[in-house]
Amino acid sequence: MAEGRDPTLRELGEFSVIDRLVSGRALPAWVTVGPGDDAAVLGAPDGRVAVSTDMLVEGRHFRLDWSRPRDVGRKAIAQNAADIEAMGARVTGFVVAFGAPPDTPAALVGELADGMWAEAGKVGAGIVGGDLVASPQWVVSVTALGDLGGRDPVLRSGARAGSVIAVAGELGWSGAGFALLDRGLDRGLDRGTDGFDEVRDRHLVPRPPYGQGRTAAESGAQAMTDVSDGLVADLGHLAAASGVVMDLRSAALREDVDALTPAAAAAGVDPWSLVLGGGEDHALVACFPDYPPHGWRVIGAVRAGPAAVLLDGHRWDGPAGWQSFD
Amino acid sequence: MAEGRDPTLRELGEFSVIDRLVSGRALPAWVTVGPGDDAAVLGAPDGRVAVSTDMLVEGRHFRLDWSRPRDVGRKAIAQNAADIEAMGARVTGFVVAFGAPPDTPAALVGELADGMWAEAGKVGAGIVGGDLVASPQWVVSVTALGDLGGRDPVLRSGARAGSVIAVAGELGWSGAGFALLDRGLDRGLDRGTDGFDEVRDRHLVPRPPYGQGRTAAESGAQAMTDVSDGLVADLGHLAAASGVVMDLRSAALREDVDALTPAAAAAGVDPWSLVLGGGEDHALVACFPDYPPHGWRVIGAVRAGPAAVLLDGHRWDGPAGWQSFD
Repeated sequence: MAEGRDPTLRELGEFSVIDRLVSGRALPAWVTVGPGDDAAVLGAPDGRVAVSTDMLVEGRHFRLDWSRPRDVGRKAIAQNAADIEAMGARVTGFVVAFGAPPDTPAALVGELADGMWAEAGKVGAGIVGGDLVASPQWVVSVTALGDLGGRDPVLRSGARAGSVIAVAGELGWSGAGFALLDRGLDRGLDRGTDGFDEVRDRHLVPRPPYGQGRTAAESGAQAMTDVSDGLVADLGHLAAASGVVMDLRSAALREDVDALTPAAAAAGVDPWSLVLGGGEDHALVACFPDYPPHGWRVIGAVRAGPAAVLLDGHRWDGPAGWQSFD
Repeated sequence: MAEGRDPTLRELGEFSVIDRLVSGRALPAWVTVGPGDDAAVLGAPDGRVAVSTDMLVEGRHFRLDWSRPRDVGRKAIAQNAADIEAMGARVTGFVVAFGAPPDTPAALVGELADGMWAEAGKVGAGIVGGDLVASPQWVVSVTALGDLGGRDPVLRSGARAGSVIAVAGELGWSGAGFALLDRGLDRGLDRGTDGFDEVRDRHLVPRPPYGQGRTAAESGAQAMTDVSDGLVADLGHLAAASGVVMDLRSAALREDVDALTPAAAAAGVDPWSLVLGGGEDHALVACFPDYPPHGWRVIGAVRAGPAAVLLDGHRWDGPAGWQSFD
């Protein structure tokens, strides 16, 4: 092992690295077997388990010149947690498979793990198991498990005409952050000086409205999903699965657009395209029979008709940027 | 889309490819929400769930010039199923995250999925959800879930002096197949002519002894793992976790060695090194208080003493090849 620099994954070896990643981490009481055996064992008190998986590939889903390893870890956990929230469930644990080049400094993998544990802690869960392998670039594959607490899962197919569409969480912030970073308005050049650090940070680490998935389920949500591909695209999935029209109200989205207008102008993009089409915020969008619970805001109405997403009753023939979501 | 050749992932698009992968597949009755929503929901009647994850990276864990996509799919499912078996649990479902270059023919991904479903069918389970992303090379990340059926999980730490060590499944076949393929004694040159097709196939698709994990648990197994790194290496994990000596009996392994001797000779490797050190067969090895159930064979005894794996009571100073597992 060369002196004066961090040891690499190759130098430490798989088991030694894993020891560093898992030692001293506290797991909830419902995890009866944590990392270190052939499989983990955790509680599923409902008698059913919700499960979702996502893969992030370096260069495709994150860039290590934009994101710190800690950010990558937080993002990977957050987007999987949001999928469990979107079923109305509570996250009970995560397993993580991670690939990286053998010459990766082990300390960077430690930072990735720290980010994962920090984000997992926000939903009261932990990393119960994983796999560590060699790969030409970083690959992070997370699976999240959740418990439904005796409630029916909130599917995409339950929306009914006459209901309201409501959202919890932010819309367009991740897309705005991406646009800024993509134009080179990045940390090194502009951090702390242009006023958009918060926007960039939201792209690197989304902030799903943790707990609101369960709240929505308890409040009678008929259908729900998280905004990973963009509000219109994801509402399109609800519309198709439910066989209804999702009619958004532009006046209800004005506040979201206004909040992003300065950053959008700096990045040279249309703020409406960010709010309607920006993905990866992992806000929750759901349909409620009458009104949504605290923490949610109404942004439109569910109407009868062939599956479609409209804005103020019209197809996307408005301002530039919307066509791309059609 | 160019005429006369298979469409690629890029040409078909994520959702269309996923539709092809999941349509027409039958899921067990305990899967109440399958692919297509934010998360799957499946039964966990025990009130706990066992979960394990593994990542396979092209060029590291498989080669597409050796393995057909169907083989890769079967192997990825088999090795995860073996982890669940090794806890004494029954597999209830899998989620799969898959990355591939956008110019990958979609038909190849279909073959991968067919292999996964075929192998999953052997344990009576299905693919309940997944993620499909772009990646510079194929990456297959599988998470398996299992149900303990009211039994305690069989950990690595429960082995006690005085018990017997027993194995279900094959030892060294995958390593022998790898050695043949690695020496260029491959399908194209030798398939069907040298008598070792079966050995090569075992490297491409392991054959875990499905069902024997639960049988072992029901028969009082104290400790269990699957042979993924090699018999000595994996017994080393049991020895360390349990604080005991694992004393293998060479006479009991003679049959395994004899079966592989012709293939080992052709590949120029020591058959003992394959049986003691070859990984990826995903046999199950377990410790039983007195004798093992049907389908298992005794290969040694558990003794008191500082954690170690011995052969006939001695450290690895025997024939060449063993040192490398020390």
